[in-house]
Amino acid sequence: MSITGQPTRNGVNVEQLTQTVGAIQDDPSLANFTFRATNTWLDGGRSRTSVQGFWGAGREDDSRGNPFVLEGDEPPVLLGTNHAPNAVETVLHALGSCLAVGVAYNAAAQDIEVRHLEIELEGDLDLHGFLGLSEDTRAGFHGIRVTCRIDTDAPDDKVAELIAHVRRTSPVVDIVSNPVPVEIQRT
Amino acid sequence: MSITGQPTRNGVNVEQLTQTVGAIQDDPSLANFTFRATNTWLDGGRSRTSVQGFWGAGREDDSRGNPFVLEGDEPPVLLGTNHAPNAVETVLHALGSCLAVGVAYNAAAQDIEVRHLEIELEGDLDLHGFLGLSEDTRAGFHGIRVTCRIDTDAPDDKVAELIAHVRRTSPVVDIVSNPVPVEIQRT
Repeated sequence: MSITGQPTRNGVNVEQLTQTVGAIQDDPSLANFTFRATNTWLDGGRSRTSVQGFWGAGREDDSRGNPFVLEGDEPPVLLGTNHAPNAVETVLHALGSCLAVGVAYNAAAQDIEVRHLEIELEGDLDLHGFLGLSEDTRAGFHGIRVTCRIDTDAPDDKVAELIAHVRRTSPVVDIVSNPVPVEIQRT
Repeated sequence: MSITGQPTRNGVNVEQLTQTVGAIQDDPSLANFTFRATNTWLDGGRSRTSVQGFWGAGREDDSRGNPFVLEGDEPPVLLGTNHAPNAVETVLHALGSCLAVGVAYNAAAQDIEVRHLEIELEGDLDLHGFLGLSEDTRAGFHGIRVTCRIDTDAPDDKVAELIAHVRRTSPVVDIVSNPVPVEIQRT
């Protein structure tokens, strides 16, 4: 990330961004983060997740006075009660919000002003996998399509380069595109 | 999914589950779903996602009168304003809620009563990837640990088998564990 230009751009404190990069270059261990969530099943397809603390930048973060509470449910056609989006819709939200952060931060670092950014996401899924009706059908999305609409004065090639960089460095693009080892244990 | 026992179990309408499985066995195209989300960047690390309609079971779903609205943000140490969990924490929520649905539905199909289910999730991430400071460091989680606490009278081997089945058939476990093609375009 090359840092130029004004201290604040796209709502991002560019000076703090520069300091963060510098601090990690001085002490690479500051880049280690562990994020956490606790999900409690409620009934049927409905559950609730609490998100608050995490480890990062060499310490336990205490910036959140209260936990964030997120819900999951299914629509009636998937035997739920529509109290909340389902898990795969939530993955699309995570992917969209990750791309939004990536565009805003990297544009700020490159002194590109983003006036407006909208990201549409679609994912295709075949229920045979989830229902255990076919071992040959994957349970999750077999493809995700993302369309970004960016309103900016930056030239087209610079915007294309920005999107390509965000794609390469987006944590959720990586999580979705590449295998993450998942260890599940029961206590 | 083998279907036995009472019509409702764990808040799941087992009769409807049986009918859903039967309908898909009769007409496999009913299993095709396309889920959608639209994310709008707000400022800095903050964005908002709207989730409402989807295609599934051979039609456009209209069961949701209003969209679900989800937010994403970053904590101050990641240059955000703590309005919402960040994108990778949201992935942990999606994974937890997917496992909760999977356990509740499959337990219902197997006539296992689940009294309580809590799922703890942790994911490790190295910020060098997101910050573009290292091309050798992946941007997303390099590992996720999940711990399930299930309160049920079912024997241990049956619960172990249930968890193994849920792991194999969970859409979000699949999305996270295996590569999903992501196509990003700009308009």
